[in-house]
Amino acid sequence: MPVGTQATVKGLSPGALRATGTDMVLANTYHLMLRPGAERIATLGGLHKFMSWPHPILTDSGGFQVMSLAALRKVEEGGVTFRSHLDGAMVALSPERAIEVQKLLGSDIVMQLDECLKLPAARSEIERAMRLSLAWAERSKRAFEGAAPQQALFGIVQGGNDVALRRESACALVSIGFAGYAIGGLAVGEPQEVMLRLIEEVAPLLSSDRPRYLMGVGTPADIVEAVARGVDLFDCVLPTRNGRHGLAFTQFGPLNLKNGRYADDARPIDAQSTCAAARDYSRAYLHHLVKANEMLGAILLTTVNVAYYQSLMAQARAAIASGQFEHFRAQIRRSWASAATCESG
Amino acid sequence: MPVGTQATVKGLSPGALRATGTDMVLANTYHLMLRPGAERIATLGGLHKFMSWPHPILTDSGGFQVMSLAALRKVEEGGVTFRSHLDGAMVALSPERAIEVQKLLGSDIVMQLDECLKLPAARSEIERAMRLSLAWAERSKRAFEGAAPQQALFGIVQGGNDVALRRESACALVSIGFAGYAIGGLAVGEPQEVMLRLIEEVAPLLSSDRPRYLMGVGTPADIVEAVARGVDLFDCVLPTRNGRHGLAFTQFGPLNLKNGRYADDARPIDAQSTCAAARDYSRAYLHHLVKANEMLGAILLTTVNVAYYQSLMAQARAAIASGQFEHFRAQIRRSWASAATCESG
Repeated sequence: MPVGTQATVKGLSPGALRATGTDMVLANTYHLMLRPGAERIATLGGLHKFMSWPHPILTDSGGFQVMSLAALRKVEEGGVTFRSHLDGAMVALSPERAIEVQKLLGSDIVMQLDECLKLPAARSEIERAMRLSLAWAERSKRAFEGAAPQQALFGIVQGGNDVALRRESACALVSIGFAGYAIGGLAVGEPQEVMLRLIEEVAPLLSSDRPRYLMGVGTPADIVEAVARGVDLFDCVLPTRNGRHGLAFTQFGPLNLKNGRYADDARPIDAQSTCAAARDYSRAYLHHLVKANEMLGAILLTTVNVAYYQSLMAQARAAIASGQFEHFRAQIRRSWASAATCESG
Repeated sequence: MPVGTQATVKGLSPGALRATGTDMVLANTYHLMLRPGAERIATLGGLHKFMSWPHPILTDSGGFQVMSLAALRKVEEGGVTFRSHLDGAMVALSPERAIEVQKLLGSDIVMQLDECLKLPAARSEIERAMRLSLAWAERSKRAFEGAAPQQALFGIVQGGNDVALRRESACALVSIGFAGYAIGGLAVGEPQEVMLRLIEEVAPLLSSDRPRYLMGVGTPADIVEAVARGVDLFDCVLPTRNGRHGLAFTQFGPLNLKNGRYADDARPIDAQSTCAAARDYSRAYLHHLVKANEMLGAILLTTVNVAYYQSLMAQARAAIASGQFEHFRAQIRRSWASAATCESG
């Protein structure tokens, strides 16, 4: 899922987004409840109509942005209060209100409110946040009753980098019972091998007939390794944010179009791509647009990157279906050995 | 012609631009000679290929930007030297170099170098600049010899707000003989009636079998009034710049989407428009995008505005052909009575 924070994937019209192969987008409850407001979007016919996207939408619960954007936040058993980063107003967000907001938005996949910690954190703090997120999961499920039949609620596994807490969280969520399960609080600075080991422990505990969603991940290599461990669904700002900063994702690895070596390069980004933006413009032109800070550079590179991510997922699905996944995985590992050049999500 | 300063009409891909009804774009010699460089664009196959626009391109001569953007400029008989606004390098631009640059770019319509004055200015200063521009016109025509057969050279009428100087400039240019004639140095702050009176004096002196081009104009009302006085061709940043600032041009007049009155307005900009961007999104969504400073707001409003300008010109052509021009002119005057809300070009 490309990230459409404020009811738009930055730089792409719905038609342009659809043409990248995108089926589902993520939108941010935190941002939309502050501006333009969930009640307003509901009055205007819901989020799908508001952003002219008649395809699936997942909304997060707002928990992650409260942690990363809001000032003066205070987490209590009842919920979280915080100061809006837009106008300084004090806002309350409880598990019940997060569900209510997502009902108003009318998203297809609704996420429970959870508490995301910054790592590293003390084990006692990680345990407290995990138990609070579990209690909020139960309350979210109750609050979700009466939602529209096309809406589905996902629970979120927390527990930081502690395997035992992660396993406890996963099993407790499965007992409560959700339409799908997310693994939250990863890709927050820990090494890739730590993240992958935690996924390895947690994924098998989550019902195999329900989607497993790894939140906020990641590089192409991260994604393919997580798929190898049983994850189905991802969201990430890497393709869009890096596109705005001049970095292209390609089947051959990353290209940094800011680099002066491309100033006279008449070749397209990838002559074999199915994405027109990767075939129809020279690297020299894209370099010029990026250096000149022109919107079209951000637009074309975002298009290239989202199309690359969608084709990566399509290839992963095809490789699994044909029994060629290990071959595909090795190929991605080689192309993205230099993935450290990507900005983190 | 929408303005594609740096080899891109801000926010629009070539396909999106084409879909607005655009046939020809303007690109800026001053900007492109400084970055990425005319020789580089020539090596890459010329400007059409560089910006993936296989349709007509007009390039200005750089004179206007030297006046408005460059520091420490010095105008002499031979040409102008100035400090680049990008890196402070001293750059020389002569009539011959301006033609050479445009030959390298490979534009379809090439403009002579002229000296643009800021008004108000003393009559002696206006006269000096007009005579210098005339001398440069002759030198431009000589330098243009040997250009590719598909390239055409236009001369530029100067003379400030002085009718006698304007007439002298126009007649002298026609004696030299150009493929088309531009009227420069207007819409630089003078009242609309002054501009229109000068056009009225000058246009009849310019060969009626050659295109007449009014540079840098203007509002829909300005354009239709200039068409009424015999002008054929226009360029203007109003549709693109205003689009980026939240203003929509419509057949009913301007809409300022920044205005809070649109926050709950479920109507599209113009349900009757042939432009999808004007029909497929609510004013409430556009208001949200503009307030949230999202690229998509600029993209959609630029699309709406360029499509409106192209439809305005198409309607003017149709009205002339059917003998209904006076009716059309009155209608545009009514819709754009409030044109003062537009930002000047």
